Amino acid sequence: MTRVAVVGATGVVGREMLAVLEQRAFPVGELRLFASARSAGARVSAFGREHEVRPAAPDGFRGVDLALFSAGSDAARALAPAARRAGALVVDNSSAFRLDPGTPLVVPELNGDELARHAGLVANPNCSTILLCLAVAPLHARAELRRVVVCSYQAVSGAGARAVEELREQERADLEGRTVEPRLFPKVLAHNVIPWVQGLLPDGYSVEETKVRDETRRILRAPELPVAATCVRVPVWRAHSEAVHAQLARALAPEEALAALEAAPGVRAWREGFPTPREVAGTDEVHVGRVRRDRALEPGIALWGVMDQLRKGAALNAVQIAERALGVGARA
Amino acid sequence: MTRVAVVGATGVVGREMLAVLEQRAFPVGELRLFASARSAGARVSAFGREHEVRPAAPDGFRGVDLALFSAGSDAARALAPAARRAGALVVDNSSAFRLDPGTPLVVPELNGDELARHAGLVANPNCSTILLCLAVAPLHARAELRRVVVCSYQAVSGAGARAVEELREQERADLEGRTVEPRLFPKVLAHNVIPWVQGLLPDGYSVEETKVRDETRRILRAPELPVAATCVRVPVWRAHSEAVHAQLARALAPEEALAALEAAPGVRAWREGFPTPREVAGTDEVHVGRVRRDRALEPGIALWGVMDQLRKGAALNAVQIAERALGVGARA
Repeated sequence: MTRVAVVGATGVVGREMLAVLEQRAFPVGELRLFASARSAGARVSAFGREHEVRPAAPDGFRGVDLALFSAGSDAARALAPAARRAGALVVDNSSAFRLDPGTPLVVPELNGDELARHAGLVANPNCSTILLCLAVAPLHARAELRRVVVCSYQAVSGAGARAVEELREQERADLEGRTVEPRLFPKVLAHNVIPWVQGLLPDGYSVEETKVRDETRRILRAPELPVAATCVRVPVWRAHSEAVHAQLARALAPEEALAALEAAPGVRAWREGFPTPREVAGTDEVHVGRVRRDRALEPGIALWGVMDQLRKGAALNAVQIAERALGVGARA
Repeated sequence: MTRVAVVGATGVVGREMLAVLEQRAFPVGELRLFASARSAGARVSAFGREHEVRPAAPDGFRGVDLALFSAGSDAARALAPAARRAGALVVDNSSAFRLDPGTPLVVPELNGDELARHAGLVANPNCSTILLCLAVAPLHARAELRRVVVCSYQAVSGAGARAVEELREQERADLEGRTVEPRLFPKVLAHNVIPWVQGLLPDGYSVEETKVRDETRRILRAPELPVAATCVRVPVWRAHSEAVHAQLARALAPEEALAALEAAPGVRAWREGFPTPREVAGTDEVHVGRVRRDRALEPGIALWGVMDQLRKGAALNAVQIAERALGVGARA
């Protein structure tokens, strides 16, 4: 049995981690839930009983085998070293260590072999990166990616529970004709789209767009791959979508691309119809549809990918990393 | 004074045409409003009084100088010939004549010179096309487009008044936890995005995506330009957005691109912040922000464009065509 700590247990991803551990019958011996001082004291249900959430602190990891972090970069930098020293495997969902050459950045279906060289710390990629990588890796394996243009349609739950509540309030106000003011986002999100995810950098790209490029290069082991992203928040509760236009080194017919996607673990290819966030929410796969010849990037493939960003984009991927690294759990 | 007929006067675009004519003090002598048999009999306010909407018929155009059509392709094919024979200039907002080599397809700021050769009929481009063309034409003029990838975020009002009402009902039901079923769209649009605008063709592209390519080539006089689009409906009331990634023949610095956009008529360039549909709705320009070096299409420029698709994307562009072709109106 595995002694598990979840850091950030009251957040949207933290709660999803607990749900995924339970659904996959992860062999949890002891469970310790941590959160910031602000959220500590809350009670969270998991594995059939209520757990008190304690304030996260460096001395809380004694005896822990696995520490799942989803508490932001500052908390990860402050607490992950202590968890590692205590002997735990840390799987961190923040961006703190994702570009650290000594830390594996892993999507188990794609580069799970890198878990062999972890030194107590594995980084979980950005959600938009996981969606993109799973959707294009089968094309890359067969025909080698040359350039990728990706435009995202990102759900509000990716910004946390308060953002979900803000959108709900904005929509109610908007439908009733009341004035709406933004709080968490720079503009109103209700009946709007916001091409600004996590702030803009001096070169005009957003932080999210830059993560998608840098992390995709690491995961696909294509350090020079040109990746241009436009990341956009949309008024969707759950599941991110991406329109992907990919240029390849060699021609790949849409039928070959579909066959490759069908054979890829973690991917569900749609030959008929197309996936949308509402129906993909709650599922474990990256759903890929609208596979077609790219009309601009030749030779190339255009496709439409959708993924529950809280599951495969965050909690599920983290638990899969743990299962494989520790050799435990349903899929061990 | 100009005798004006509006065909499709009860639709979302028809009503916007009346509003635009009034706001621009178009010299309307007589005004005749037409619609399908289903909508005929309705009363519509324009120029300070109520007008009865009559059923559209070929004999209704006698004495008309200008016939603004926004009634779909079938009605355009059935009625435009009669309107032309009656001596009217027809400006048609449907796709019926857009690819007809004998019919000018015009965005006045870009290829208004083609109005010199109209033979009583001018086609108004697709809304997504107008947005794209106004956003990239200044780049094309300076550095020559090589390829364009465009992903759209299209408002529900582009699908008509019933679609707006359906989204409103779906959102109310969703916020109250009631079951939601789609009617006009193939999937629920509330809290969702739908990568399907006007149906899919055998090659995997949608009708809308194909219009964007074919019409952009005509308007920019670039008949071979590779244009790959992914067109997506989003739960926004009004104003379309597009993420554009454009490869150019020659390098163009973002600063040069911004200067070119600032100098372009019909365009408002944002150096600070970024435009979103909520604030662009009701305005006349194409708003362009997030101008940056493209990270995948080199040399190239990436940008974010937003436009009220009922105004510049439809009604306003049609009225501007009429003003220029007839030499009348505020901007004559």
